[in-house]
Amino acid sequence: DYSGLDQIVIGVCGGDGIGPRITHEAQRVISYLLQDQVKAGRVVFKEIDGLTIENRVAQNKAIPDDVLAELKACHVILKGPTTTPRKGDPWPNIESANVAMRKELDLFANVRPVKVPAQGIDWTFFRENTEGAYTLGSLGVNVDEDLAVDFTVTTTQGTERIARLAYDYARKNGKGRVSIVTKANVIKTTDGKFLEICQKVAQEYPEIATDDWYIDIMTAKLVDEKRRRDFRVFVLPNLYGDIITDEAAEFQGGVGTAGSANLGKRYAMFEAIHGSAPRMVKEGRDIYADPCSMLRAAVLLLSHIGYQAEADKLERALDICMFEEKKMHCTGRDTGCTCEEFGNYVMDTIQSL
Amino acid sequence: DYSGLDQIVIGVCGGDGIGPRITHEAQRVISYLLQDQVKAGRVVFKEIDGLTIENRVAQNKAIPDDVLAELKACHVILKGPTTTPRKGDPWPNIESANVAMRKELDLFANVRPVKVPAQGIDWTFFRENTEGAYTLGSLGVNVDEDLAVDFTVTTTQGTERIARLAYDYARKNGKGRVSIVTKANVIKTTDGKFLEICQKVAQEYPEIATDDWYIDIMTAKLVDEKRRRDFRVFVLPNLYGDIITDEAAEFQGGVGTAGSANLGKRYAMFEAIHGSAPRMVKEGRDIYADPCSMLRAAVLLLSHIGYQAEADKLERALDICMFEEKKMHCTGRDTGCTCEEFGNYVMDTIQSL
Ligand SMILES: CC(C)[C@H](C(=O)O)[C@@H](O)C(=O)O
Ligand SMILES: CC(C)[C@H](C(=O)O)[C@@H](O)C(=O)O
Repeated sequence: DYSGLDQIVIGVCGGDGIGPRITHEAQRVISYLLQDQVKAGRVVFKEIDGLTIENRVAQNKAIPDDVLAELKACHVILKGPTTTPRKGDPWPNIESANVAMRKELDLFANVRPVKVPAQGIDWTFFRENTEGAYTLGSLGVNVDEDLAVDFTVTTTQGTERIARLAYDYARKNGKGRVSIVTKANVIKTTDGKFLEICQKVAQEYPEIATDDWYIDIMTAKLVDEKRRRDFRVFVLPNLYGDIITDEAAEFQGGVGTAGSANLGKRYAMFEAIHGSAPRMVKEGRDIYADPCSMLRAAVLLLSHIGYQAEADKLERALDICMFEEKKMHCTGRDTGCTCEEFGNYVMDTIQSL
Repeated sequence: DYSGLDQIVIGVCGGDGIGPRITHEAQRVISYLLQDQVKAGRVVFKEIDGLTIENRVAQNKAIPDDVLAELKACHVILKGPTTTPRKGDPWPNIESANVAMRKELDLFANVRPVKVPAQGIDWTFFRENTEGAYTLGSLGVNVDEDLAVDFTVTTTQGTERIARLAYDYARKNGKGRVSIVTKANVIKTTDGKFLEICQKVAQEYPEIATDDWYIDIMTAKLVDEKRRRDFRVFVLPNLYGDIITDEAAEFQGGVGTAGSANLGKRYAMFEAIHGSAPRMVKEGRDIYADPCSMLRAAVLLLSHIGYQAEADKLERALDICMFEEKKMHCTGRDTGCTCEEFGNYVMDTIQSL
């Protein structure tokens, strides 16, 4: 609850690739919506520059110490996509900045809404964000040159808190139904525990129906036009949440259109669900990058810090710009509008509401 | 290569739920196509009854010893879906019969074709079938009551053999392109190894293009009507193969329409990619079960044992019955045709070819 604060500090990390550009657009729209608060100093933006692949590589750290300190001095963070080094890259084997930030700031919940009003799709995914296959991401073991092992971890507390968040959300928003998604028929120990604990938490919410599914068949159900509109709220372990939200976002227009809230007890970070698209930058197409994902992240941020009316306005404007009018849209090429033009279009639409 | 054999023994396991019914239909169609061989005793069916959940539970074993011995006495196996016990069931915590059979018979490759001719979709998935998150499926550790751990395993040999099978298939069928799918940006040790070894194998096939993707974005790409027809052959670790093939099958009409080949050096098993649908049996709807998945599995079986002309005939008949005519289809309810009627329809169509 931020209502008691004299000042809310929004940290802004542009990230890599198209990140700075789409993040800038989101910041511009937030400033526009909160112009009085910004003028009065009740909301301030703090730019955090050091979360680039160059700096992370130079310091050989997923999140350099000084950057982490800056992040921790903010109330909430607006973060553009960051480039994740991987084997074969000319970079040291540092962890993904997303994954590291989620762990360092204990952002245990990754909340990802997807909606397609015309098709009755209105989904909210509650992805556990610090455990599962991600817990020890970089700490797998090469037992010998032929045998590699990775670990998956599920804890009682970690599962309880994400389950409770999902059920609280369902209760508060009258959703009536939560779907638990695991692969507990095979990954019996960790996914079995996840399922069991979610079902235990479910008992505290007798008015909400619970069903459970395996991740394989759930990816099929989302494609099924007759069945998919029946789903509302999903709760799922880290890896399955990662996978299914990209699929889900595609029905809405692609990962380029989906934002997410990474929530913890103390911090909150808002980001796109997609990557930094280095190829667009290399080919000079980054001015045509689509800021919709970061604008959706901005909706979640505004709502989170208590500006619900402004969040609703932005959401309504995005629904109009993305689904109803489509006068302009970013195609990633010069056949579409630019990132900045789309930002202006959204602000014009807000004004006309 | 089965061409030197005097007799090919096809083991038939009906499995659980709708399994016996749809497997029976597939057996009927195979017998019809191979009637001369069956009459001459060159092809024989051997029914294996013991792979039911009741018997597995009674013997407290994923595959009872006598059943395993019977399976090993066959050349190839036609298997209906089996019910997988899970936590909370009134059954002991035995492993999935599918998973156990894949391991016991070392069926390292799960080959799953999906096609939608009208949309230009023609995909073949090569799912690694004995390792990854499935290796130690039931052997996770509850470190204490709050902390559960599971293991993921990738071996050099295990990855090489699935990669080679995928590239050999691409070469033999002029596919021109193989897509490797992992989550090597996070699951760095095992998926990183999988990716690296696939890329190494790829070098032996210079005429075939290779690209690699993360599983999250790949589930989105399959939805993308403009991009998805460009994909041809996929190679991927066990869990991702499990997930994405259910999604892929949905474009073809659902998991009820997709068959798979489980291949090893010595044995081969052909099955549906879906479950045993106990609810259909409970509600008396099993006579309306769709045998298409097992009929697709039969295509793969026929091709595998060297009856390519018969496999092609059945495939062509299924393409007509499923996509072109749709005079009859199984809906799972009395609004559709029965499993047996569909089997007859397929045989009539074969005759008319
Ligand atoms: C970039 C990657 C590490 C990240 C993840 O896997 O969580 C991304 O896919 C996401 O979903 O935010
Ligand atoms: C039933 C289950 C154990 C199995 C799997 O996960 O492999 C099934 O989903 C499949 O894809 O064959």
